[in-house]
Amino acid sequence: MTRAVEMLRAAPTRTDVDEAVLAECIAACVECAQVCTACADACLGEDGVADLVTCVRTDLDCADVCAATASVLSRQTAYDAEVSRMVLEACATACGACAQECAQHAEVHEHCRICAEACRRCERACRELLTAIGG
Amino acid sequence: MTRAVEMLRAAPTRTDVDEAVLAECIAACVECAQVCTACADACLGEDGVADLVTCVRTDLDCADVCAATASVLSRQTAYDAEVSRMVLEACATACGACAQECAQHAEVHEHCRICAEACRRCERACRELLTAIGG
Amino acid sequence: MTRAVEMLRAAPTRTDVDEAVLAECIAACVECAQVCTACADACLGEDGVADLVTCVRTDLDCADVCAATASVLSRQTAYDAEVSRMVLEACATACGACAQECAQHAEVHEHCRICAEACRRCERACRELLTAIGG
Amino acid sequence: MTRAVEMLRAAPTRTDVDEAVLAECIAACVECAQVCTACADACLGEDGVADLVTCVRTDLDCADVCAATASVLSRQTAYDAEVSRMVLEACATACGACAQECAQHAEVHEHCRICAEACRRCERACRELLTAIGG
Repeated sequence: MTRAVEMLRAAPTRTDVDEAVLAECIAACVECAQVCTACADACLGEDGVADLVTCVRTDLDCADVCAATASVLSRQTAYDAEVSRMVLEACATACGACAQECAQHAEVHEHCRICAEACRRCERACRELLTAIGG
Repeated sequence: MTRAVEMLRAAPTRTDVDEAVLAECIAACVECAQVCTACADACLGEDGVADLVTCVRTDLDCADVCAATASVLSRQTAYDAEVSRMVLEACATACGACAQECAQHAEVHEHCRICAEACRRCERACRELLTAIGG
Repeated sequence: MTRAVEMLRAAPTRTDVDEAVLAECIAACVECAQVCTACADACLGEDGVADLVTCVRTDLDCADVCAATASVLSRQTAYDAEVSRMVLEACATACGACAQECAQHAEVHEHCRICAEACRRCERACRELLTAIGG
Repeated sequence: MTRAVEMLRAAPTRTDVDEAVLAECIAACVECAQVCTACADACLGEDGVADLVTCVRTDLDCADVCAATASVLSRQTAYDAEVSRMVLEACATACGACAQECAQHAEVHEHCRICAEACRRCERACRELLTAIGG
């Protein structure tokens, strides 16, 4: 997803935040939102869906929060550090919860294994961006 | 928006959270997301759009965060208090920032006056729900 | 949800579309998105979730399409009739499909009964707005 | 965005749709939603924002529709061809409108040039998927 970097560079406004760290966080949020949406659906299609109810719910929350975070981070005009910080904290928390839940089904369901990975990547990216912006 | 209450009552799972406080927060988030989307658009249509750039950006962030919060709060199955708490904190922060920005244009632009009100209602509802869930 | 009307009136730009019809459609989309999100979650919490898999999926699609439609309709600046028309067609289709699915569980699950009603209201509002804008 | 393909393969349900065409469409929608969000913000930050009002609006609509389309397409359980078709038609229309608008500013604003490209890719991917599912 080099598009996120290209768009950061093409924007008239620049934040002081490290561009690579910001771009990685946007890319990770975008990927995690899609993967969580797909994982919720895959869980729903499993014969043992009754045992995956918590996983579906956690996926859906994580997808919603990651999508909102990706949008907030994609904006550089009139940047508000406090809003960014709180959204990143929420996103890291949602990703951490989803990674933990999906990891429990990772050996049985490949979609949960991939989803746990995407969540861990996104949680890490959020924490690194929080450090970069002084959160 | 009594539908939010009806749906809380029709759900098989109940959280321990005060139903009225939760329903008010869902309704406030849903309303605030729509009003912020409309306010961003109204600002964009004003002759003096160049002076409303910060307002548009704050509206768009607030709309995204409120929409995600409404979705997370609308789920009661496999409730995760920590995710709810962090999302509510982020939402209250985004609403507070948007209310403050819109309030500065409230005397000139009726859409900003209404939006500031919707944001204040939503911020208050998030803080009350945070208290109710022990955040 | 009189806020939608207030915001339409406070906007600097006015479309030629009947204000009451447009406001009803925005309100119906916003309500339907929330109700479908809650219905998907309620289905997920039922003991017989395995029999409600199609319902959850239809709810999630309907929620996503209604939310996008509400946002597109909330914008009056630089209005594009063709985009509005296609989005409304998609929304009416998603609502019709979800109403049909939820109606099958309406006698057993109160959340599905309410959801079918919200979907029917939204489908109707989309069709009336389509007629109003000449779609 | 090979994650979208991996998730399609890891899912318990398979549609009859060509996997590569579906994955490309999901990836294009996800990318286009992010790029449009960033382009709307970049336009907002330009000195000549007053001349980019239509572009911001078109970007915001396109971002909303692409995000909803990505989510609908990421679900394979209980697939509904009619809903997919209508959503894809709406997405192709929104992308076509945004590509056309952004193309007009492509020589002056690099973010509009990139955005026009992302929209064209997404429009093409939607049309190809429509052909593949017989829309």
